[in-house]
Amino acid sequence: MTSMTGRHESTSNRPMTNPASFEAMWADLAGVGRSTCTAGYRRFALTPEDVQLREWFEQEAARRALDLIVDRAGNQWAWWGDPDSGPGVATGSHLDSVPDGGAFDGPLGVVSAFAAIDLLLTQEFTPARPIGVACFSDEEGARFGVPCSGSRLLTGALDPDSARALTDLDGTSYADAMAWAGRTPHLLGADPEAMARIGTFVELHVEQGRTLIELGAPVGVASEIWPHGRYRFDFTGRADHAGSTLMSDRADPMLTYAVTALAANKQARTLDARATFGRIIVTPNGINAVPSEITAWLDARAESPATLEALLKVVTRQAAERAGRDGTKLKVSVESWSDVVRFDVPLRDQLAAVLRGAPVVPSAAGHDAGVLSAAGIPTAMLFVRNPTGISHSPEEFAELGDCAAGVRGLADVLRELAG
Amino acid sequence: MTSMTGRHESTSNRPMTNPASFEAMWADLAGVGRSTCTAGYRRFALTPEDVQLREWFEQEAARRALDLIVDRAGNQWAWWGDPDSGPGVATGSHLDSVPDGGAFDGPLGVVSAFAAIDLLLTQEFTPARPIGVACFSDEEGARFGVPCSGSRLLTGALDPDSARALTDLDGTSYADAMAWAGRTPHLLGADPEAMARIGTFVELHVEQGRTLIELGAPVGVASEIWPHGRYRFDFTGRADHAGSTLMSDRADPMLTYAVTALAANKQARTLDARATFGRIIVTPNGINAVPSEITAWLDARAESPATLEALLKVVTRQAAERAGRDGTKLKVSVESWSDVVRFDVPLRDQLAAVLRGAPVVPSAAGHDAGVLSAAGIPTAMLFVRNPTGISHSPEEFAELGDCAAGVRGLADVLRELAG
Repeated sequence: MTSMTGRHESTSNRPMTNPASFEAMWADLAGVGRSTCTAGYRRFALTPEDVQLREWFEQEAARRALDLIVDRAGNQWAWWGDPDSGPGVATGSHLDSVPDGGAFDGPLGVVSAFAAIDLLLTQEFTPARPIGVACFSDEEGARFGVPCSGSRLLTGALDPDSARALTDLDGTSYADAMAWAGRTPHLLGADPEAMARIGTFVELHVEQGRTLIELGAPVGVASEIWPHGRYRFDFTGRADHAGSTLMSDRADPMLTYAVTALAANKQARTLDARATFGRIIVTPNGINAVPSEITAWLDARAESPATLEALLKVVTRQAAERAGRDGTKLKVSVESWSDVVRFDVPLRDQLAAVLRGAPVVPSAAGHDAGVLSAAGIPTAMLFVRNPTGISHSPEEFAELGDCAAGVRGLADVLRELAG
Repeated sequence: MTSMTGRHESTSNRPMTNPASFEAMWADLAGVGRSTCTAGYRRFALTPEDVQLREWFEQEAARRALDLIVDRAGNQWAWWGDPDSGPGVATGSHLDSVPDGGAFDGPLGVVSAFAAIDLLLTQEFTPARPIGVACFSDEEGARFGVPCSGSRLLTGALDPDSARALTDLDGTSYADAMAWAGRTPHLLGADPEAMARIGTFVELHVEQGRTLIELGAPVGVASEIWPHGRYRFDFTGRADHAGSTLMSDRADPMLTYAVTALAANKQARTLDARATFGRIIVTPNGINAVPSEITAWLDARAESPATLEALLKVVTRQAAERAGRDGTKLKVSVESWSDVVRFDVPLRDQLAAVLRGAPVVPSAAGHDAGVLSAAGIPTAMLFVRNPTGISHSPEEFAELGDCAAGVRGLADVLRELAG
């Protein structure tokens, strides 16, 4: 392992000309962390799979004679040209996954970044500004619960003490897991020096939706990341015997919850937003017991904060109405809130022009690009068409032809921005 | 501890005349296994609380000079008169509880049995047939998942190998827990000798509903135990990103489940039956993930098997219809089925007459009395009025005056049956 903030010295200032192709890189990654049971990926931060993926990244950097830098937040950077010779153009994404996730969310951006550099090399392009490939640590937050911890540590949005104290389900701390992986917990933190190298950031990502399918475009440019709220609903009823208690004598929070889940779905459809109840805890969760309490989390996103607020208002009102009929109580609390991220407009328009009128589409998912944008770095995203729109699932997919279009588009963008 | 099948010899064949009163016994039990957090009871089989409750039963037997017998299934019996002198009249119930259960479900029947004997003593009654007080082991099945394991082992409805192999959530087997409690696992099994002693069985129990409240009667006689089905519903959808996946592109099993839970509630109300979804497992149960799978259990009971079947049919049809709209799949399987138990009709009528026209009411909850009835023993139940109808909850209650009416009624019944 390269030590934190260590640099793998290149033997020449010019990348080698015999790189692995996109397909070869893809094949190298295909087996890492793949469950034979679900065919989904389990690539979590600071695990053996993570170590293996980071070694792969080092090898790809070395193969192209790029300078490898690991920043203080644990993110890997492979630079073409002296990264300290002036703010550069960075691209890349992440290699970790959600539990039983797909192959594309993250890896497509990293592999495409290397492949775009390879393409620029065959075109004998010489960058006027350094070009960097990023591999952000722990974007999904699957193990320690905080998404984008690598980029948020880098920008200072997440303080290192909080990060070190995070624990996984087994009680292992982020700090201990870092030490296990051969990294140095006390060095963890914001890295202004690494930030100063990023003049512009462009993240390529598989689309997690079907807008590009509908528009018939292989590649699009992101306009923004939707605002995102996470709300906790506590429904309190009364434990009762499931056999002997008359239906009319019950205060069953399961019913209030069921109506709330359906209301959230309906409002999201009506407002063209997103609303999901994906997590629920039932107490006592016994087959022959009317539940006394249900806690459920609403993940809601919409084009604007106002729409999101309207959605929450209607869902809360309908839940409260039903609670009145069920004799249950309802408490709604905001667990997290991420404001809208609007990507740099001149950069977005420049990219759309380079990509010959590629459509501009919003994202309803969070990304490291959003974290860098919020930290003031001119940032953009490219999306590659996803034939099913499915993501965070083994069925996540992109056609090879569309991936190639993404690589060509990214190469054109890098040529434009670093030329 | 008395060893299994061991007998505590009485010093006389006649009970002592200075027994603890109902209230004193109630006060002795009040603190055992009570959670200071919920004020509910946690009295599970083969735990320190169980040992303490069994010791209490031994002391109450000894205080009245009753013969103590522990049968091969681990149930305790306290006999007034030689239990082998002819089939006797047995009463009693159980002392264990559901998680965070109430004080009355079980203990009321045991305490009332001792108190009824005390009352018969003050009346200088001499039984012509032996009278026994039973304390059945593990009626709720809260720890090992099988309700009425004590009575079912006794009658042979549960085979001892299956029982010994049951495990709790920590992986401790029933056999190991027995050994921990000082009992002898290899002796576990049906006990025809103990069964032969039970000519008639009458269980007194707090009502777990409000029929007696509506009828204005402190005590009732059970007509039957409703048939009871436990059904497993597996809803399969597709994992998706909660942010980026359009609502129209999802196959979200949470929606199918929610509609099913509401349908079950509606059908139970329509058919005057009971239907409860109290237990649900969500996969992957992540806040930002559309679930891929939901398993939920329906506990359903009705007056007749035909009504229960009609309920299940409508709920399954509505669930399947919604699954079609949601793009999810549904599988319904029967996990358990308990047929209707019709208590002995002449015995029931005899008890109603003794109790001067006490109403005859059905039970929608399972009891050890149902197990003995299914094994061919003439069996009856008395219910004591519950002002709220609430059961399996810390709020479970019966007024002291109604408990006293129950004790008097039970004493009259024992006098009638054993006179």
